[in-house]
Amino acid sequence: MERFSNISMAVVRRLPKYFRYLGDLLSNEIRRVSSQELSKITGFTASQIRQDLNCFGGFGQQGYGYNVEELYNEIGKILGLDRTYKTVIVGAGNVGQAIANYTSFQKSGFKLHGIFDVNPKVIGLSINDVTVMDVDDLEKFIKQNDIEIGIICTPKAHSQKIADLMVDAGIKGMWNFAPVDLKVPDNVIVENVHLSESLFTISYLLKEREETTKKKK
Amino acid sequence: MERFSNISMAVVRRLPKYFRYLGDLLSNEIRRVSSQELSKITGFTASQIRQDLNCFGGFGQQGYGYNVEELYNEIGKILGLDRTYKTVIVGAGNVGQAIANYTSFQKSGFKLHGIFDVNPKVIGLSINDVTVMDVDDLEKFIKQNDIEIGIICTPKAHSQKIADLMVDAGIKGMWNFAPVDLKVPDNVIVENVHLSESLFTISYLLKEREETTKKKK
Repeated sequence: MERFSNISMAVVRRLPKYFRYLGDLLSNEIRRVSSQELSKITGFTASQIRQDLNCFGGFGQQGYGYNVEELYNEIGKILGLDRTYKTVIVGAGNVGQAIANYTSFQKSGFKLHGIFDVNPKVIGLSINDVTVMDVDDLEKFIKQNDIEIGIICTPKAHSQKIADLMVDAGIKGMWNFAPVDLKVPDNVIVENVHLSESLFTISYLLKEREETTKKKK
Repeated sequence: MERFSNISMAVVRRLPKYFRYLGDLLSNEIRRVSSQELSKITGFTASQIRQDLNCFGGFGQQGYGYNVEELYNEIGKILGLDRTYKTVIVGAGNVGQAIANYTSFQKSGFKLHGIFDVNPKVIGLSINDVTVMDVDDLEKFIKQNDIEIGIICTPKAHSQKIADLMVDAGIKGMWNFAPVDLKVPDNVIVENVHLSESLFTISYLLKEREETTKKKK
């Protein structure tokens, strides 16, 4: 994936975390916060936090800290959460259904416009008020409805074909749950959630820990 | 989380990817592979690959490359996938159900022994042949069955309480889907899957792309 910005992906990946913590502060009616306090909550260093927020112009004031609501709204805007996105899910299996039912995404502005599957038994069913359609209609649907984000929850063997089809239809971003590294043009964004890789990290670390414990004995 | 090993987390996180690609090669009955070929498939550089695999003793032979099956099995062992793990899921909502039904985890050795929830309407139901139990029985169940991995799929507000309870019961690793950074002792492993953070990265990048396109015009 080609990047046009000077902001590193490491900073970009920390932003949703700031956004989440600031949201928590807001719910607790806390109105201002220092970088030191943010550091305690987030686990990042205060200087890291100041540096991150400076990338975007910096919102803090010497001696006052950050206005929580202002910073929350600003980071929301930076994350592109001040507008809505049209999405479709392909693959109405376990993961596809879970995502479709995950209402917080819809509340954040990621509106689900369609769910697609190959299985005739599933086509026509309704998940969270969205009807499952035939994957043969996917390309037309994306074009006609200006869908921007495609969520790929298909089995591994079909995911690249679906990604190709989405690219042809003009999709701009993909959220990929299939355990495959999709090949797409540079101008298409792919964000992977590779669950097995995450799970295998646990087994690795458990094993490492056990071996170290044995050695120590 | 405290680490005891010299192997960096960056290397550890690449291992499941090697494992996946080698599994694909095996299914296609490919018996040997060079670091150059692995580089083409994985997108990592050949020297990166050689360096990564050297961390674990190195399995390649000059002029031959790697024996696919041997390397696959070795990496599986390194990832701790040559044994089984006892797991429980807490939270039988959308995500909990999806994980319970995701049979590939069970095939990889992560055996689901119990599902727990607070909701009386859900307790007693069976998901993928595992009965949902009352979360009040969680601590006893973990202790009596030597459960090693707890999968947290509860709402945000309950996740730290569940994590504390798991720690008290002796859980060694947690796979956390709640949008919270859990506080646990150093000897407990936590691996997070923060879906919102992943999704917000897409909206950020879409926005960045649009702004750059506008500027270019």
